Order: sequence, then structure tokens, then C-alpha cells
Amino acid sequence: MLPAIVQDYTSNEVLMLAYINQVAWEKTLATGQAHYWSRSRNKLWLKGETSGHVQIIHQILVDCDNDTVVYKVEQLGEAACHTGHRSCFYRRVEGDGLVTDGVVVFDPELVYGRK
Amino acid sequence: MLPAIVQDYTSNEVLMLAYINQVAWEKTLATGQAHYWSRSRNKLWLKGETSGHVQIIHQILVDCDNDTVVYKVEQLGEAACHTGHRSCFYRRVEGDGLVTDGVVVFDPELVYGRK
Repeated sequence: MLPAIVQDYTSNEVLMLAYINQVAWEKTLATGQAHYWSRSRNKLWLKGETSGHVQIIHQILVDCDNDTVVYKVEQLGEAACHTGHRSCFYRRVEGDGLVTDGVVVFDPELVYGRK
Repeated sequence: MLPAIVQDYTSNEVLMLAYINQVAWEKTLATGQAHYWSRSRNKLWLKGETSGHVQIIHQILVDCDNDTVVYKVEQLGEAACHTGHRSCFYRRVEGDGLVTDGVVVFDPELVYGRK
């Protein structure tokens, strides 16, 4: 299992980090849509399978140690995060706390039927 | 142990991925220089301790699940990768192989005294 950093292919904004295994990697290459291995559900996960917000692969980068990849993607539906934010990294460290900067693009209740 | 995605604070280029634990996190916050936990050496690692190419923290982002961070840094010495490339992600998938796109900024032999 390796981490995949997911980056917007135009702005270079980091949208999320997820994990891949051999099956997810091969499905991603074969379909051109980002697939991951869900560690919580322990199954192959087509990102966007519920929301329709799939990630179209534009480029894949591999690191020097062959143990991390970058997926440069076009994020359909504008948001990658299940909270409705564009990026999962919508909070920044400020002093001893976290400040929310990120934009909410959709209402998770409407997209997933639950918060 | 959590993954830290390291991004150039101006261009948003992803430079590397490394791992942090509580000690590395606290040293990073206290010093403003990126510290990691070296999984191969099993010790605290100030990035740049050998090369002098430290990473000055400009911003830290935290993801929705509190299990991944982004360090937005100024990379001194221009290169983050021990191979001398600016980014560890200097290769892209092309067909069945990998193509090298990234720029070599320094000669590792001169910086580390070995290839």
C-alpha cells in the first residue's frame, strides 16, 4: 500500500491524500479515473462512485524511491473532500489552533444524503 | 506516524513526501524548519542536516481526518531530493515506462560526498 498525493492538474492545489495498492493502480491506469484502496472499508474505491465527482487522470508522477505517487487530476464536481470543501486540506495551523480557509463547494447532505 | 506532503510555498510544486511523529511535529513548530521521522534510520531528521538544504516552513495545512499534513516550504539550496532533482517526483508515467522530466539542481556527490 502506497500513498497517492492528489493534485489539481492546473492550479497544483493538493486536494487529498489516499492510498493505492496494485489493484487500484491497475484500475487507474486502465480507466484514466483515480482508484484507491479504502483502508476503512478494505475494498477498491473509485473516487466519486457515490457523488459522481470522479477524478480524471492527467498525469502520474513517481518519486525517487518508487514508494509514493502524485496523481494530477481534473476534479469533477469541483470538490474532492467528503465535507464539501474543494480540498481536504481546508484548515491551516495558526498559533495553537486551526483556522478554516477552504471553500465549501457542495452540501454533503445533498450529495451523500447524510452529513 | 503520519505522512507530510511537502509543497513549494510559491509554485505549489510537490517536492517530496516524508513522515512525521509527535517529536518531529513539535520540533517543526518550535523551530520553523521541517523535521521528519526517518523510517530507515529510525530517528528524528532535520531535513537538510547534511546538505544545509533546510526547508523553511511558511504554512502548515491539516486534512479533514487529521491524519495528513501539508508543509508549505521555502526549499533552501533549490532541491529537495537526494538525487539532486528539485522534486522527488521527477519522473512521469508514459505508456509502460517512466520518463524523467525533472531538473537536476545539484550534484549529489559534491553535496553528500557520495552518489
